[in-house]
Order: sequence, then C-alpha cells, then structure tokens
Amino acid sequence: MLLEAEDSHLVLVDYQHRLMPAIHEAQAVLANAVRLARIARIMEVPVCATEENPEGLGETVAELKPHVATIVRKMAFAGGEDLMPVLRPLPRATSGNARSLPRHLQKAHAAPPARNSAVLAGCETHVCLLQTALSLLELEYDVWVVTDACGSRTERNRDAAFDRLAAAGCELVTVEMVAFEWLRTARHPRFAEVLTLVK
Amino acid sequence: MLLEAEDSHLVLVDYQHRLMPAIHEAQAVLANAVRLARIARIMEVPVCATEENPEGLGETVAELKPHVATIVRKMAFAGGEDLMPVLRPLPRATSGNARSLPRHLQKAHAAPPARNSAVLAGCETHVCLLQTALSLLELEYDVWVVTDACGSRTERNRDAAFDRLAAAGCELVTVEMVAFEWLRTARHPRFAEVLTLVK
Amino acid sequence: MLLEAEDSHLVLVDYQHRLMPAIHEAQAVLANAVRLARIARIMEVPVCATEENPEGLGETVAELKPHVATIVRKMAFAGGEDLMPVLRPLPRATSGNARSLPRHLQKAHAAPPARNSAVLAGCETHVCLLQTALSLLELEYDVWVVTDACGSRTERNRDAAFDRLAAAGCELVTVEMVAFEWLRTARHPRFAEVLTLVK
Amino acid sequence: MLLEAEDSHLVLVDYQHRLMPAIHEAQAVLANAVRLARIARIMEVPVCATEENPEGLGETVAELKPHVATIVRKMAFAGGEDLMPVLRPLPRATSGNARSLPRHLQKAHAAPPARNSAVLAGCETHVCLLQTALSLLELEYDVWVVTDACGSRTERNRDAAFDRLAAAGCELVTVEMVAFEWLRTARHPRFAEVLTLVK
Repeated sequence: MLLEAEDSHLVLVDYQHRLMPAIHEAQAVLANAVRLARIARIMEVPVCATEENPEGLGETVAELKPHVATIVRKMAFAGGEDLMPVLRPLPRATSGNARSLPRHLQKAHAAPPARNSAVLAGCETHVCLLQTALSLLELEYDVWVVTDACGSRTERNRDAAFDRLAAAGCELVTVEMVAFEWLRTARHPRFAEVLTLVK
Repeated sequence: MLLEAEDSHLVLVDYQHRLMPAIHEAQAVLANAVRLARIARIMEVPVCATEENPEGLGETVAELKPHVATIVRKMAFAGGEDLMPVLRPLPRATSGNARSLPRHLQKAHAAPPARNSAVLAGCETHVCLLQTALSLLELEYDVWVVTDACGSRTERNRDAAFDRLAAAGCELVTVEMVAFEWLRTARHPRFAEVLTLVK
Repeated sequence: MLLEAEDSHLVLVDYQHRLMPAIHEAQAVLANAVRLARIARIMEVPVCATEENPEGLGETVAELKPHVATIVRKMAFAGGEDLMPVLRPLPRATSGNARSLPRHLQKAHAAPPARNSAVLAGCETHVCLLQTALSLLELEYDVWVVTDACGSRTERNRDAAFDRLAAAGCELVTVEMVAFEWLRTARHPRFAEVLTLVK
Repeated sequence: MLLEAEDSHLVLVDYQHRLMPAIHEAQAVLANAVRLARIARIMEVPVCATEENPEGLGETVAELKPHVATIVRKMAFAGGEDLMPVLRPLPRATSGNARSLPRHLQKAHAAPPARNSAVLAGCETHVCLLQTALSLLELEYDVWVVTDACGSRTERNRDAAFDRLAAAGCELVTVEMVAFEWLRTARHPRFAEVLTLVK
C-alpha cells in the first residue's frame, strides 16, 4: 500500500516539445516531472519515457531528456504493450531453442517482473497517460499516477481522468508522497539529498 | 476498461427544444453533444436519441437531429426498456414457430448483444439521463456517461448525478476520452478527421 | 437502484427551532425539506420526524410540522432504534401469548419491513443525520440521503458527512431526483401536481 | 461504523515546533488538535503523540504537550511499528520462559488489542500522517483520520492524502463527528462538558 523504491519503475508519458505548450499549467507540470525524475535517479529507480508519434509531436523536451535512460516510441495511445520490453525484459534463453519459439510463446509473462510498480506521470492525462495506465493495470502492474506532474490541455479533462484512474484502481499520489515513500525513513542515506529537491 | 468503437452504441438523451433553454451552460453542452455524434458517425458507431414526452418538451433540437439515425419516444424517465428494440434487436426467427411464442418467451436476452457498451449523454443529467443509465446497467450494459455533453437546470443536481452514476458503476468520461479510445492509435485511418473535431 | 415510492419512508431529522438558526444556508435547507415533505404526501409516502432532546433544542419548526404524521423524540444522536416502532411496526399478535413474550423475543425482525427504503434529510448532517443514517444501515435499511435538504453549522462538517455517508453505502440524492424516481413516468396521475413543486 | 470511545486510541502525529510554522492554516489545525486531545481526556480515551526525528524537527508544540500521556520518538515516517508498544502492550508473562523468548516470537499479535480504533490527526498529512495511517491499517487497526486537525505545507498535498486515505479504507471524520460519536447521547454524563469544547 506504500510505494517501494526497489519495486518501482518511473514512466514519463509524452512530455513532447510540440505538445507541452498547449498543456494547462505546463511549467509547473514539467518542473514536477523533472523533480520526480531526479529523485528517481537518486533512489536508483529506472526511468523511461514514451513519445507518441514523435514525427508529429516532437521529441521529449530538453529539460527532461537528460534524466531519462530509455525512450519508447509508439503510435498507440496506450503504451502498455510497447513498454513491455523495457519494464519486463525477457529472461535470457536458458535452452537452445527458446529464441526459436514463435513470438507468442515467448510471453513476457514467463519472466516474473522484478519491479511491479509502475509510477506514471505525463500528458495528456486523459488520453495517453490514462490509456497507458489502464493498459498497465491489465498487464497486472500496480499503477501509481503522480498527479501534480500530469497535465491536459483543459483542467476538466485532466480531473475527469484522475477520477477515472482512481476508480479503476490506480493509486493517485504526488511527487512528495513518492519521495517520502521511496525513502521511508529519515535515516535513509540519500535522505538529505532528496530533501533538497522536495522543499 | 477502455472503450471500443465496435462495441459501442451512442445514446443521446432528451436534447429537446423546449427543455434545452433551461439547461445550465446549454450551449457548451449541446456543442459537445454534436461533436460526439459527429465523431460517432465517423467511427461507424450507431447513434440513437430519446425524446421524453415529445408533445410536451418538443423534438430533438435541430443542430443534433441530422446526426441521429433512430429516435425513441417515451414517457418513462428511464429509457432502458424503450431502447431495447434499438440497442438489442431480436434475432430473426430461425424456426417457424419462434414469432408465435408468447412475448415473454421471445426475450431480448436470447440475442447476445452485438454491442454491449452504451455511451450516454443528455439532459437532465439527474432525471432522464440518470434513470436511463441506471436502467441500462440493470439490463447488463456497460454504461459510459459523457459528462461534458450532459446538463441539468442546476449545477448541483448535475454534479450529484455524476457522483451517483460513478458509485453505481458507470464510467464517467469526456468527449475527448471517447474519441481517443474509439481511435486507439494515431495510425487509425480516420485519425486526422476525428482530430479536427477534437482540437 | 432507483428509489420506489411504495418502498419509501421519509424521515426528517431534527429540524428544530432552536437548532435551525445556526445552520449554514438554513433557509434553502428548510425550503427543500418542506418541498420534499409535500411531495412525499402527494405520493402517499409516510412522513415522520425526529426531535433531539426537544426540551433543549425545541420542537420541529412550524413550516415543516403540518406535513409530518409522526414525531419521534429521542436523546441518542443515532435515531435508528427509536424509529423502529414507526418504520417497522410490530405485527399484530396472532396467538394469545405473543404479547406476553419478553420484549427481546418480540423482535422487530419478525415483521418483514413493508417499506425498506429510508429517505433521510436533516440537521446537523454530520451528527444526528449521519448517526441516524448509519444506524439505519445497520438495521438493514436502504438509506437515501437528500443532500440539498441537509445542513450543518459549517459547510466543511456537512460535506465531510456526505463523503462518509456515500462511502458507507448510502445513496446521495437531491429533492428533484427523489421526486422523479417516485413518479417514474410523465404518465403518473400525480405528475403535474408534483411538477409544480419541483420547477 | 460509528466510533466508540471504549475502543479508541488518539494518536497525534508530529505536531512539532520546527514543522508547524510551515503548515497551511497551522493555527486552525493546531486549535482543532488541542480540542480533540481535550475531548479525548474527558472521554478517557488514551492520548499519545509521535515525534519524527525530534533532534531535527523539535518537540511536540507546547499547546498540545500537556494533553499527551505518552510520546513516541521515531525516525521512520510510518509510525505503526513504533506505536505498537503503546497501542498494543504485551500481556504480562504468564509462564517463566515467555520473556526469554526471542523478540520475534513475543509477537504483539499474541495480545488481542483492547482498543482497536486508532483515531489519527497530524502533520504532514501526506507524509507521516499518511504513512502512519496506512501502516496501522496493515496492523489491522480501524483507522479514523480527523481531517480538520490535519495539515500539510500545501493544500494540494493535504487533499491528495485525504483521497488516498479514504480509498485505502480509512474513515475520514472531523473533530465534531468524533466528539458526538464518543458521546452517543445527550444523556452522557460528560455531554455538557464536551459541548463547551465543540461549539
């Protein structure tokens, strides 16, 4: 019920440079996304980002890109399937014929996920963030949505998405909640470092 | 958990010309209803409308009518039963005596519904929209209520209806959520066309 | 899931004349309570009222009293138990010794409730209304709370009560929702009469 | 579903003098915490307080301290485990070797909790209050969060915590709800005394 750093992935959804200018309160949203990504790196939580139709919407914005380890390009609004190779890599083949199996038999399900909590933030909350979150729920992830790092073009659409995500079983959190749950105690060796990003 | 175009009906509830002028933010509500109906047609989702007591409240407003394939007139506030012949038509008789059965044996349940998701919007949210939504839930439909195309005479009644619909198990969505879930991907052949109606 | 007139009691909680002046938006709250009681009478729904510690807080206000059939005086904040003789009267004795049984064997549970939906409104929402609602839930009533006829001294307490009531399984409704669910159809013989109280 | 005085502990989380000045609406939050603690003492509900990293954040503020029986110092943000010796004291040894058992065998679970309702209030709502509440839920307490005595540095974080606590199964209440549920009736011998603190 509390988030754990060792169980977490951070997934940053579609912070793309031709999309962000249209987002409501884009500056605050992006600042929180950067804080979140920096805290993730301090806590050794893997950080990936998705880009929707990058030829149309551009790449991940420059402020965020240095903090991202892996970028997943996609055309589907729901990023769940496209994220699987990053979030749940296939185990190395242990016998000669594993790689030669038809793809549908090389199921990701065969590899028990090392990290089962997907911490998500992104834009637009009610389109790609929402569809990605719901698709990850179906893939049996625990999904945590960091609301103060999410945005839509309109507040109404953003808030309608939050309500729906909560009803679907996502845990709605904030950047600070994530930070203090990853830390768990003031004795954590990175406590002071994370604190400078929070206050 | 995500809406599918192939599984959807669009049901427009009581956008009638002697009712609409009393609705809070009627202009925005109606504009969203028209957008929704146009997107439905592009996506080949069947569109029907109900009219409550049309002799009293008038017909469906002129802006919406061209986008509606079927109109269902009713006196009950809950439209579920009246909508059944449209949403779940009886299968053609396959044997000689099927039509001669007593009506209660010709159950609609005998025909597995081709489209099980009822996407609803309308007025007043807390009367006919609410009662129709709840009656469709009882008829085992998945019910999706498009909040930004719904209205009541007062905001308080409208919002109380949304809370109750969510608690009853309806999925509360917006016009844009519906559009992007029906599409699913930027590769959809109608993507560009729908996009002009959304932005 | 929709309210039925034949299954309803209306319970008006503690609209007392030394309490009402302190209530937030008391005038609107009381006007809605009066409308609700008048609609109940038209629809032949029994109306009762509770009075908390009437020596201290006074009697039911004069505007409401003419519409109330039965008044229940109490000292407990939760009115559930005190309401049982009104909401669920004991069946007439069918054998000679029934009345001579010890009271705990004359259980109200022995009489299947003719009306199982308790429609509640009153003051203060977060004290006597809340405790009465929760005690009726425990007595296995379906509890409907008419929010726009409820008040507390502060909005924050009132709204906190609504959230808690919803979470506990009460259905939160408004005066208009109740009216149109009791009616069900524009063909109801009392439709026009109720409509004059609603619009 | 209603709170009972005999089943309650009051736990005041981290009202520390170097933290409070940063809290949104600190004065009202603290005044409500003091009222709550005074009511608890009148009702003979045990009152304890936690202090997070007291060398850094200081001690419990002077206004509250006189009303607290026990103080628990901690470094973990979630206070559940640290509170166990106070909330659920070990039973006295009934045989000679009980105390000599390794600590993990002297399980708190062995002692059935005399008081199973933890009534919580504190700061910051979205960090230590939240984590303490969730950890007490996992220890099988019924957790009641007194929202009008809780604060965070920002409203958004505070309210996000309330939503999450409710979704996790905590009961969200106010000081007045607690007071009138602990009392239950205007006949309670301490009714008049508590009333002076409420109104």
